[in-house]
Amino acid sequence: MDARIALQNVLHTEIPITRRIGIQVEHCEINRIVLTAPLDPNINHKCTAFGGSLYSVAVLAGWGYIYNNMSIHKLDGHIVIQHSDVNYKAPVDGQIRAECKMEEPENLYRFIKTYKRKGRARLELQVKIFFNNTEAMVFNGQYVVHQ
Amino acid sequence: MDARIALQNVLHTEIPITRRIGIQVEHCEINRIVLTAPLDPNINHKCTAFGGSLYSVAVLAGWGYIYNNMSIHKLDGHIVIQHSDVNYKAPVDGQIRAECKMEEPENLYRFIKTYKRKGRARLELQVKIFFNNTEAMVFNGQYVVHQ
Repeated sequence: MDARIALQNVLHTEIPITRRIGIQVEHCEINRIVLTAPLDPNINHKCTAFGGSLYSVAVLAGWGYIYNNMSIHKLDGHIVIQHSDVNYKAPVDGQIRAECKMEEPENLYRFIKTYKRKGRARLELQVKIFFNNTEAMVFNGQYVVHQ
Repeated sequence: MDARIALQNVLHTEIPITRRIGIQVEHCEINRIVLTAPLDPNINHKCTAFGGSLYSVAVLAGWGYIYNNMSIHKLDGHIVIQHSDVNYKAPVDGQIRAECKMEEPENLYRFIKTYKRKGRARLELQVKIFFNNTEAMVFNGQYVVHQ
């Protein structure tokens, strides 16, 4: 199955509220995940996206990045968010679009190597939400994967 | 109207996804807000609460704390989350229960005073999610309120 469809099915099946948020996988590549969600189900009183929904899409873009790379390496494991730091920089009054891009692939290789050896590894990921070509949110997450 | 019911109505009306998450206001006091949500709509593949849902309940406990205190002081304004830092310490495999408690009320008084003078003020709040008497998540949020 196509990696994009596989990730979307996993999200919708394993974390049912992702269907309520309306999360779609737009890109699922080895170094890049893009998730989207429509504004409508995530709207707040100011007609912009609720900060908790922005967070949910961002944390899952990082989760999806690890899930996809674990699948590529035929590895199983529990992917858990351990710490996050979030800056909200501008409101989003349209589609939510969160991109997780690995700028330093050696971090991923080190993570995979550690996980194979120890059955546990940690990875820092950055996810950005852009709106109208402006950074609307920057999410830094520390994920732990364990068997 | 009772402050607890008023806050719950505001959340459910102004941020509709709070109904999907199942957020209820358990306590709405001058120095303490407690929000809850059932596990079921927020469950993940490990039968624990999805980290994005924990975040949503926590960020709204802080939002509700400010909303309630603004109401008490008969002030209007837009309450916006600007920055957050989150530590996930243990899984939650039952009801989500997030508590925002103001340990230093002078911070609130300073915030209200600044807002009245400048029409804009900033407040740092801590929200904790406990499960089985253990800290499961600690959320530190910086909120900005503006006219």
